[in-house]
Amino acid sequence: MDQTDIPAPVEHDRAVFPDGLTLDCGTVLAPVEIAYRTYGTLAPERNNAILVCHALTGDQYLAETHPLTGRAGWWARMVGPGKPIDTNRFFVICSNVLGGCMGSTGPRSPRPSASDTQGEAGTDDVAEPWGTDFPPITIRDMVRGQHALVRHLGIERLFAVVGGSMGGMQVLEWAATYPEMVFAAMPIATAPFHSAQNIAFNEVSRQAIFADPDWHGGRYWEVGAIPARGLAVARMMAHITYLSEEALTRKFGRRVRRESTPPATPCTVAEPQSLSLFGEIFEVESYLRHQGSSFVHRFDANSYLTITRAMDWMDLGAEHDGDYAGPFAGTATRFCVISFSSDWLFPTSQSRVLVRALNRAAANVSFVEIGSDKGHDAFLLDEPDFDRTVRGFLSGAAEHAGLGHHAAEA
Amino acid sequence: MDQTDIPAPVEHDRAVFPDGLTLDCGTVLAPVEIAYRTYGTLAPERNNAILVCHALTGDQYLAETHPLTGRAGWWARMVGPGKPIDTNRFFVICSNVLGGCMGSTGPRSPRPSASDTQGEAGTDDVAEPWGTDFPPITIRDMVRGQHALVRHLGIERLFAVVGGSMGGMQVLEWAATYPEMVFAAMPIATAPFHSAQNIAFNEVSRQAIFADPDWHGGRYWEVGAIPARGLAVARMMAHITYLSEEALTRKFGRRVRRESTPPATPCTVAEPQSLSLFGEIFEVESYLRHQGSSFVHRFDANSYLTITRAMDWMDLGAEHDGDYAGPFAGTATRFCVISFSSDWLFPTSQSRVLVRALNRAAANVSFVEIGSDKGHDAFLLDEPDFDRTVRGFLSGAAEHAGLGHHAAEA
Repeated sequence: MDQTDIPAPVEHDRAVFPDGLTLDCGTVLAPVEIAYRTYGTLAPERNNAILVCHALTGDQYLAETHPLTGRAGWWARMVGPGKPIDTNRFFVICSNVLGGCMGSTGPRSPRPSASDTQGEAGTDDVAEPWGTDFPPITIRDMVRGQHALVRHLGIERLFAVVGGSMGGMQVLEWAATYPEMVFAAMPIATAPFHSAQNIAFNEVSRQAIFADPDWHGGRYWEVGAIPARGLAVARMMAHITYLSEEALTRKFGRRVRRESTPPATPCTVAEPQSLSLFGEIFEVESYLRHQGSSFVHRFDANSYLTITRAMDWMDLGAEHDGDYAGPFAGTATRFCVISFSSDWLFPTSQSRVLVRALNRAAANVSFVEIGSDKGHDAFLLDEPDFDRTVRGFLSGAAEHAGLGHHAAEA
Repeated sequence: MDQTDIPAPVEHDRAVFPDGLTLDCGTVLAPVEIAYRTYGTLAPERNNAILVCHALTGDQYLAETHPLTGRAGWWARMVGPGKPIDTNRFFVICSNVLGGCMGSTGPRSPRPSASDTQGEAGTDDVAEPWGTDFPPITIRDMVRGQHALVRHLGIERLFAVVGGSMGGMQVLEWAATYPEMVFAAMPIATAPFHSAQNIAFNEVSRQAIFADPDWHGGRYWEVGAIPARGLAVARMMAHITYLSEEALTRKFGRRVRRESTPPATPCTVAEPQSLSLFGEIFEVESYLRHQGSSFVHRFDANSYLTITRAMDWMDLGAEHDGDYAGPFAGTATRFCVISFSSDWLFPTSQSRVLVRALNRAAANVSFVEIGSDKGHDAFLLDEPDFDRTVRGFLSGAAEHAGLGHHAAEA
């Protein structure tokens, strides 16, 4: 991939915290910027805010056209006026995670120089990006960044925190770290720990990035390149884990297509003739190549490494001798745990571990396994049962919270 | 990886077929060499031969020390005197598949020059390897090579054909293509077609190889290199699919280890500090890196591409309007279909498709799903129920075939 393919910078709305944050690794990261978007109106009582947490490759462009891809926001079908997360009623906040690449502080952000940290501002030098020197980030660190943002917005207590996959991990860390600030929590298609299998998949994706000739030890910007092939391989593999065997069979089966169009993959190596019988490739291959090649235009490889690692470290039981009830002792938060029957990346069995722990902590918890053959990505797709569950839980919780039916109009 | 890491050539026993084979793609591949090993003694009646077919990365060194790795044969626990496939009773043949890299004709074999094909032998030129110009191979082509070998050994009819995974695909092609030569067939942990999900995983592994800077368009031998990083990534990913979530959790869980030892991965890029919290990595990562790095010493990347593609093309129903009973119409072969409950690469549902098709073809078929949490690789591991099933089916079939209890001693 040559330099012209690198996307132009986009200006993101953000909050700046000059004093930064103390991370789990002990490093004080400063300054910290958190890029975010909001939808709907904050009620005068400031009691109708819902924080939505995004997944590994998501971002803050939840319910509007994405400024880089031009596509609809990743949860536009869930969040908006009259939708299950109803912006006529709720004030919805979504921020790019710490370590991300869509405006929040991450590996692509300028690394403060020694002179900056000594308070000698005003140098005209263009700062180098952090790159692989960006400090290790945990899910709790991401939540610390969101916490700073929520306070910055003048909100003392969130009505709800909602998220799927890695977003669900953040929901759990919110409920564990700032329980008094979370009235309701909806962890979706997630787990209170990252499994050995999921760590394994993440490790393969990282090795694919390291194997790319354009990786350059993580300092790829110095040569105007990005490790597009390795990042595309990582995305292709991950994408398989987001679907299900049934979904792939239904969408593609064994259908083939002529190799008439140029390959969509950023891989510039011509495919050996021996891999084509009668000039045909499988549709599922063409689809995956497209997924891989479109991803590299919007995501930074060092962010991918940082964020997958944060997921790997997720283990809410670690500080409680492996007891997942520990972090939730005495919680007053109302939980709704949701899993999908065909999700094999975060299977229902892992949600059950969470639900049993919440029960042991005497938490107010409901649990729904949505029947779906769409796999892990079901939380992003059209699943009417899921929509009804989200809408129903939020309505019930709003009643208990004493929110007016249209809080924003109150 | 530098040149000194490339394994020294090993001499393999082989049969040579100067006239070669006509492949499914229409190419006449000549000459063809099939490398093989045998165990036990062929009965004077030549009626006690069992052909064992190996999986994607297996080879003919079934029940003896492997000449490259120094490790026990891949099915040494199944095949030998007194073992479930009893070499006191049966004559066991195992050959390296066409397209492989352990002595049978494949991408690493010398490509006959134009003068060779015109019969002008005797040139002293060292022939170039086929490389990526090796013709596309199907599972049926692999079976054609085995068929030539079996006839070469003077055997008119095999008592049984047995194999797991891609080996099971070969068992099915044997029963479909040469039904009169197969008395009993045991397809294990396999399917009569390759699923969209499995094609997808194979495609990712191929893209990982293409992305390696040492791939050199498939002509890596010219620079004395091998695409070790990409091949290791491919192997690491595939290895996850061979296990189960339960097995990975039981073996590794979330245990960590100090990064005190040098990385076992062939990836020479130092890992970013940001991927290590307190200098620790997960044991499952260390294990996968070892799997990846040890694999590249014994396997050729072009063979990996050729063989994964052969698996993708597997679809026994393709020539029968999608009816998997079609290839088995009128079969007299006795089938024993075996699956493993935790195998998600070749799940039991796919074995059921096969069993239902065999039932429609009025075949003699038994079906056993072995309860196991070891995933796809269970057929290579210690599963006493599986051993008993193999032993029982072969004993019963031998009685029906009129084999003496110790045919080799008859």
